[in-house]
Amino acid sequence: MVSSIAEILSSWLDQFTVASTDGQNRLVYNAQWRHNQQQLLRLGHHLGATSAVDFIGNVCLDFPGQCHNARPIMTGSHMDTVAMGGKYDGLYGILGGLCAIQQIIAHHGRPHNPLRLISFSEEEGSRFPAAFTGSRYFTHHTTPTGLIDANGQSFDHARYQAVQALHSLADRVVPTFSPAQSFTELHIEQGPRLANAHRSIGLVQGIVAQQRFIVTVTGQSNHAGTTPMSGRQDAVEIGCTLISQIYQLAHHQASDLRVTIGQLTVHPNTSNVIAGEVRFSIDLRHHDDLQVARFVAYLSKLIASQPQATIASTLQVPATLLAPTMLQANRLCAQQLGLSALELFSGAGHDSQIVSQTTPTAMIFVPSQGGISHSPDEFTALSDLVRGSQVLAASLYTQAY
Amino acid sequence: MVSSIAEILSSWLDQFTVASTDGQNRLVYNAQWRHNQQQLLRLGHHLGATSAVDFIGNVCLDFPGQCHNARPIMTGSHMDTVAMGGKYDGLYGILGGLCAIQQIIAHHGRPHNPLRLISFSEEEGSRFPAAFTGSRYFTHHTTPTGLIDANGQSFDHARYQAVQALHSLADRVVPTFSPAQSFTELHIEQGPRLANAHRSIGLVQGIVAQQRFIVTVTGQSNHAGTTPMSGRQDAVEIGCTLISQIYQLAHHQASDLRVTIGQLTVHPNTSNVIAGEVRFSIDLRHHDDLQVARFVAYLSKLIASQPQATIASTLQVPATLLAPTMLQANRLCAQQLGLSALELFSGAGHDSQIVSQTTPTAMIFVPSQGGISHSPDEFTALSDLVRGSQVLAASLYTQAY
Repeated sequence: MVSSIAEILSSWLDQFTVASTDGQNRLVYNAQWRHNQQQLLRLGHHLGATSAVDFIGNVCLDFPGQCHNARPIMTGSHMDTVAMGGKYDGLYGILGGLCAIQQIIAHHGRPHNPLRLISFSEEEGSRFPAAFTGSRYFTHHTTPTGLIDANGQSFDHARYQAVQALHSLADRVVPTFSPAQSFTELHIEQGPRLANAHRSIGLVQGIVAQQRFIVTVTGQSNHAGTTPMSGRQDAVEIGCTLISQIYQLAHHQASDLRVTIGQLTVHPNTSNVIAGEVRFSIDLRHHDDLQVARFVAYLSKLIASQPQATIASTLQVPATLLAPTMLQANRLCAQQLGLSALELFSGAGHDSQIVSQTTPTAMIFVPSQGGISHSPDEFTALSDLVRGSQVLAASLYTQAY
Repeated sequence: MVSSIAEILSSWLDQFTVASTDGQNRLVYNAQWRHNQQQLLRLGHHLGATSAVDFIGNVCLDFPGQCHNARPIMTGSHMDTVAMGGKYDGLYGILGGLCAIQQIIAHHGRPHNPLRLISFSEEEGSRFPAAFTGSRYFTHHTTPTGLIDANGQSFDHARYQAVQALHSLADRVVPTFSPAQSFTELHIEQGPRLANAHRSIGLVQGIVAQQRFIVTVTGQSNHAGTTPMSGRQDAVEIGCTLISQIYQLAHHQASDLRVTIGQLTVHPNTSNVIAGEVRFSIDLRHHDDLQVARFVAYLSKLIASQPQATIASTLQVPATLLAPTMLQANRLCAQQLGLSALELFSGAGHDSQIVSQTTPTAMIFVPSQGGISHSPDEFTALSDLVRGSQVLAASLYTQAY
């Protein structure tokens, strides 16, 4: 069974990715995204599943159970990637999940509950300014409105064209999918903790709280050569001083607090003009909502002390706890396979945090080499991919048989 | 004569500018630039000048002198602007210069030396990555090669099309213009010193030394949620710390040293990804080459102390001294008009620093309200514009009669 999973997974991953130094660029509804969802529908047909597509472009492959009325035991992840993304983020949860379902049906026959593989349309927020649109639609039947991508194309138009292109390959085209009994998401860790601890499996206790802010520093744009230093309001100088202070503050907090200033724009951004405006993002995460709130209080005080600066909140997501009983069951599954799992909080957001709002949810992590993700350098050893799929198979078996 | 200069200047400035909240966008060789050089050729024809266009699109209006062999006494400035530029930068030197020539010929008849008004094609470097291309061509007969603008258009192609469009309006199309006896450039200060000192006239001793650098900080791009703070190489954190240190260093130097970090780019510049690279410019100016060299030494030491950072020099221009005898003569001209001139170094670069490499050169400044320039808010009171043109007229008179 081990060599078989390795062969299948390796072959599927190659079929669903492109070999390019630019990595994977499967932004929601683009040509590569359509190609992959179509490929998945064909693969599901080949494996004997009943396939379905919903309004937003989520794809389901349903494997029937003996009890038709029982809710499906669901696994899967998202099909989209960030720009210049890696080979495993999202896709591994789909193909590793399908592999697990295929293996347990091959070995144990028809399950009691139906088994379902879901491929969420979008999670990354890398094309339109909204993330988790696939799992939000699945969970709450809501879609974002008024979204435009960087090329001015509307979400609605892109969705319509891409989802239409899936219809002829699906057994069923439905407005929404039926609810699931449970959801187990297999995913790469996207961080270094499993690799550093030399563990093959992570079991996710929950997903960290996250807040995002935009800080705007307003200076006075002027000529770099003619304006004396003493009379300046240089937005780069003020902004960089603030950023240094924010990082100093961050390093004095609880070790699990993560503070990132990843986006910074300067206006007019010309070497011989004093900057009139600097805007920068702050991304703040911790598994304890109170630690996040405490840092936000420090941050607000710091920004308030600088009259040229203002701060606006753009995202507030509280910490999510996944289902403790499912985590406990998965711990046993790992132990029975001789694997010692690390239990940890996810620093990244995942579809699981949305689905868990209505459905008991668990997540299984496999290591990311060097902790690298959202990059063409993202890598997980095939042996770890296989172990993740085996733990998932064991988990689905205990739930569905 | 005062009211007459005021009326003419005011009317010409209105004719040669557009009324828009976006200011002037007369980038070299664009439609507005062509329109203005054509307008100037028509105005020269109307005023009885012999007009000429050279290879690069500099425009000359020559007013004959009694001595045909004498080299011309030249005034003028540049026709181009920065993007969203002001009404006076460059254009005032052309129209104020033409006004001065017209007034002295009207009052004193034909001069001994010919008088020449020059409209340099380009000085700002705002469209192609090269500045002073007009005065460099006039002075050294050199053109840049291989330049491309932000839309991928080549300098050569843009030049060819725009300069062709001037040919039918010029009396002469020439490869290069003959050398001048002297050059006096009238210009707005683009800084606050005249306004702060309540002076209408500045006489420029020289133009500051300037050096530019690009600093590159190489970090490790990674996921903002999953990468522990302790293991990070965050290029924004390292870069902003360096920038704060550079500004601290700058504030401890001689008061005339000007240090500006106006351009900063972050890669990949995404709020939830730790920055892998930050690049920023440093613009450094002082009228004393030694003060610049001293700061460069400090800077090199600081950058060398940060292993993630490298520094590259992109521009080195030594301080330029303008002709002391011309400055002395202009001081007298101002005194005779009852004006107390401030003598100062220019913190901005000007065509004068190029022309002075082969030709005795002087500059006359008028105040910029609030020191603001390179902005639609650039403003100089009409009374100051008139005084500048009067001092220039007196200066040209002493040279040419």
